[in-house]
Amino acid sequence: MKNTNQIEKNAKTVNKFLKSKLKGNPKKLYDAASHLIIHGGKRLRPYMVIRSCQILGGNAVNAMPAASAVEMVHNFTLVHDDIMDNDEMRHGVPTTHRKYGMPIAILAGDVLFSKAYQIISNTKLSPIATTHLISRLAQACVDVCEGQLLDVKMAEEKKIPTQSQYITMIGKKTAALFDVSCAMGAICATNKDKDISNLSSFGRNLGIAFQITDDLIGVMGDPKITKKPVGNDLREGKKSLPILMAIKIAKGKDKKIILKAFGNPKISRNDLNKAVDVIRSLGIEENVRKQALKYAKKAEKSLSKYSGSAKTELIALLDFVVKRSV
Amino acid sequence: MKNTNQIEKNAKTVNKFLKSKLKGNPKKLYDAASHLIIHGGKRLRPYMVIRSCQILGGNAVNAMPAASAVEMVHNFTLVHDDIMDNDEMRHGVPTTHRKYGMPIAILAGDVLFSKAYQIISNTKLSPIATTHLISRLAQACVDVCEGQLLDVKMAEEKKIPTQSQYITMIGKKTAALFDVSCAMGAICATNKDKDISNLSSFGRNLGIAFQITDDLIGVMGDPKITKKPVGNDLREGKKSLPILMAIKIAKGKDKKIILKAFGNPKISRNDLNKAVDVIRSLGIEENVRKQALKYAKKAEKSLSKYSGSAKTELIALLDFVVKRSV
Repeated sequence: MKNTNQIEKNAKTVNKFLKSKLKGNPKKLYDAASHLIIHGGKRLRPYMVIRSCQILGGNAVNAMPAASAVEMVHNFTLVHDDIMDNDEMRHGVPTTHRKYGMPIAILAGDVLFSKAYQIISNTKLSPIATTHLISRLAQACVDVCEGQLLDVKMAEEKKIPTQSQYITMIGKKTAALFDVSCAMGAICATNKDKDISNLSSFGRNLGIAFQITDDLIGVMGDPKITKKPVGNDLREGKKSLPILMAIKIAKGKDKKIILKAFGNPKISRNDLNKAVDVIRSLGIEENVRKQALKYAKKAEKSLSKYSGSAKTELIALLDFVVKRSV
Repeated sequence: MKNTNQIEKNAKTVNKFLKSKLKGNPKKLYDAASHLIIHGGKRLRPYMVIRSCQILGGNAVNAMPAASAVEMVHNFTLVHDDIMDNDEMRHGVPTTHRKYGMPIAILAGDVLFSKAYQIISNTKLSPIATTHLISRLAQACVDVCEGQLLDVKMAEEKKIPTQSQYITMIGKKTAALFDVSCAMGAICATNKDKDISNLSSFGRNLGIAFQITDDLIGVMGDPKITKKPVGNDLREGKKSLPILMAIKIAKGKDKKIILKAFGNPKISRNDLNKAVDVIRSLGIEENVRKQALKYAKKAEKSLSKYSGSAKTELIALLDFVVKRSV
């Protein structure tokens, strides 16, 4: 796939830039801060920053600091998220706090966050553009924190959230960073509000479509590809869109089978498979894909007035995001 | 004391500003982020931002966003520090993670950090000044993270650090934020590099004097005022200046008595008092106070070319910092 090559090519440039910025003393701090970055990630957000700059005629070089900053912020959220959830593995390696201990992992996240702002504040862009970038990034970070707290609250509460509560949560927790990636790319190319808001809207809707698809994979995904059992999110009691849809729609015996598996770490593989089969039979997959497509269409519409290769690549990314199975 | 009144008056204005900025949804996130701020703190750093702006003829109103931002960053470090050290109490109340749980405390710190940048990026200052503020603040945050890691490393290692290693560590962990407070105050008033670097140097040296004095109180402080037993830091094995000086100077039986108490949570009150008496007899208090005074003199020298009431108040603060016993 042509698009995947483009993403990989871009990732190499971003990785080089990130590596050059994540150096310093004490070395252990920067090793911990680089740990997840070194071991994986497709650099989708930096790719969106760069292409959003190019779609408006901007120079990719000008967008590289913002692209790297958003990747640092993304990794900062991963490092702290893993501590909060006490997750053991990510990208096939131990999480940062498992490898370096919790105190250093907290600091590793904090230094990634600090470096992101340091990099953006030292670009060659005009001070007006720089201030605009920082204001947008800071607002996105506030949104991510709010979204993560909504997620924690949702997990704690017994109540099953409504679809609209779920969309609000992922809008902040996930889509805010996709949104700001595209908005920052646009700001690196132009000061026109309309263009910035078009790209911002593209990023936000792509981000929601991304998370919805991610959540579908978390329930229905092929275990050979996801490396997690089918129904993993159901067993973990995650209140994601496919699950809350299924619980809402299911009736009688079907509902019983789903609720037996929901948030039950001791469920047998057989009963878990049964629950996933019920969810499948309820047409949840089609329904969820339809939702993701709705947001993808909105995203596409935001770019209707643009053309050129950067647009082609952003649309190809959008397509990849909603069609992917991993 | 006139100066204390000034600090308190300033703190009230800062608190009002902070309160207005730490609002939002979900409420729990902002409650957790405000928890330590509500329960204490003298707002020394915001005071330094404001006075550093005024000493250069600037308007205090212009410095209020930077003043609040630095207090948010300070509190962000406290919240995360308390998690890292698993401390239970601060300002006489349970720490944020004790009250809200670790995941929400991590997010509370992160949102304070994000809000700090959001506030600075939305001031009425020129974009050039704003970019300068953010660049300085981000660098200070990187320094604080590095300093905290040096502190963690120092605590883990068996080796007693040299005085110069200790000064490097507190220069980053503590003084960087005092430094940037004064530098940011200056930037809110002027774009003259010399003035900014004078104030920056004042803040840095005051910060080092502050931490040295703090560490002295941690060993020799009056338990009635500190609410901790005499010799508390010695018992906890903290490698602070008075302790590393004492270990270096002491000989024979004296050294034995000190090392028996050092990092020994089971030491008897009697043996701990004995160790503190030995430290006292070695003249450590005078020696440490002399060091603090050395940095205070450097700080004072940085302001030699200025005059007026803001200068008087900054010098009074410096005096308070090195003479205080709590």
